[in-house]
Amino acid sequence: MTERPAAQPNTAKSLTIGVFDSGFGGLTVLRALLALIPDAHYIFLGDTARLPYGSKSRETVARYAVSSAKFLQAQGADLLVIACNTATALALPDIQEALPIPVIGVVEPGAHAALTTSSFPDGPHHVLVLATAATVQSHAYTRALNALGLEACEKACPLLVPLVEEGWTNHPVTDDVLKIYLTEALAAAPATQTLLLGCTHYPLIEQAIHRTLDAIGHPLTIIDSADAAARATAALVARQFPNRTSDAKPTCTFYATDSIEKFQRLGSNFLGKPVAEVNLIDLGG
Amino acid sequence: MTERPAAQPNTAKSLTIGVFDSGFGGLTVLRALLALIPDAHYIFLGDTARLPYGSKSRETVARYAVSSAKFLQAQGADLLVIACNTATALALPDIQEALPIPVIGVVEPGAHAALTTSSFPDGPHHVLVLATAATVQSHAYTRALNALGLEACEKACPLLVPLVEEGWTNHPVTDDVLKIYLTEALAAAPATQTLLLGCTHYPLIEQAIHRTLDAIGHPLTIIDSADAAARATAALVARQFPNRTSDAKPTCTFYATDSIEKFQRLGSNFLGKPVAEVNLIDLGG
Repeated sequence: MTERPAAQPNTAKSLTIGVFDSGFGGLTVLRALLALIPDAHYIFLGDTARLPYGSKSRETVARYAVSSAKFLQAQGADLLVIACNTATALALPDIQEALPIPVIGVVEPGAHAALTTSSFPDGPHHVLVLATAATVQSHAYTRALNALGLEACEKACPLLVPLVEEGWTNHPVTDDVLKIYLTEALAAAPATQTLLLGCTHYPLIEQAIHRTLDAIGHPLTIIDSADAAARATAALVARQFPNRTSDAKPTCTFYATDSIEKFQRLGSNFLGKPVAEVNLIDLGG
Repeated sequence: MTERPAAQPNTAKSLTIGVFDSGFGGLTVLRALLALIPDAHYIFLGDTARLPYGSKSRETVARYAVSSAKFLQAQGADLLVIACNTATALALPDIQEALPIPVIGVVEPGAHAALTTSSFPDGPHHVLVLATAATVQSHAYTRALNALGLEACEKACPLLVPLVEEGWTNHPVTDDVLKIYLTEALAAAPATQTLLLGCTHYPLIEQAIHRTLDAIGHPLTIIDSADAAARATAALVARQFPNRTSDAKPTCTFYATDSIEKFQRLGSNFLGKPVAEVNLIDLGG
């Protein structure tokens, strides 16, 4: 991925990592980051007043994402993780151009993680990407996978985010919808060997996806771009902030642009623990 | 409903009706308006860059809806129809306060239409309202129905809008989801006699709703708030604009705040005919 030098890469100070998503899904990335880099400060922003990004145009998503990224930098972020596949796919270059700090997305780490599973010596490795409509239309995953020599097929799954937000993560209707989406996708790409979850909501239905793949007789290795993005961030931190000090009392501050109550209630499912102290902010619009 | 006097109610001029929705669903209201008042000019605005409103807070929805309503007035609207249940439920008083022209919503016309079906002489009439989470949380329908002496029960159905937008209007998964929602709702409100569709997307699955109600053995009269709002608008026009001139060449102008291509593609399903000439506008945000 493209990386910019940090403003003060060698100054010994504690590190603040900004994490941005259009909603709650990016909390799965924050959860993975907290496991890998537990001694940093975190600032998370969910742009919940303007979600979802997945059904909107590139221009609109770029405008929303850049204003959100600038907010996190103004709050003191030393580096930024775009924990939203749609914002990464449609607007990562815009955000990197607008900010003087390193910015990591989720698409290229996901593609690199797929590469590590390609231990098939003969012929090309085929990856199926499940994502929102906007992420698929951008073809960002296909470009990133092709650049690594992997074959890619993308499938838009517009109902999966609403099903996860309805709480139907272990539900027969979700299994039926997955069966339809996966059967269609595997008919178009029968050589698929690896499944890449190209949306931060999807880790919550990973078990249902495994179950459905088994039921239709096509078990696959599943790659989670949230985990992959956290590992890429840890590598970047080790390289670009070698002199950072560990903080004995790391903090986690949450901001949302809409209902704090809903953010706390739904967010805890994604973070895997209670979401405390959410601050409401207005980014306009 | 609360009505304000038109600025120039008795001037002989042709009439321009502004119609506002967060997205495409309000085109079902425009469709009903075009059938009842075919000789007026129409300006339709879909605030597609900020949809959906159904999952957002009252403050955010009011801010979005007022800016959208002001845009339509600036374009020359003589009266405004809020063709969005969520915006009506959460922000109708805010919009009426901000604009000097008559403003009609969809909630009170829907409640009045339910009243006309209540031909049961003995005991209270029970109405079940299906709507988005935000509309249900506002309890606007319960207040409007109770004010007319009707009993109300509301059921949030967050998956129905995504299912309609996926195009699954006649699909076994939609039938399964409807069966779950309707069975839960009728268990809580077994005395229900009338079903009120409190979201402008739902008329597109009215047949599936009838089919599901028959399957679970609880057939109901279905009221559509889109039709009801059009009838209320026609009555207001006859009363407040008695001297308006009919226009031989009425126009229909469309504005959207996000992707014109998507608005045209999805919108035609709701309008029942092609959506021509959509103009992209920026309301900020």
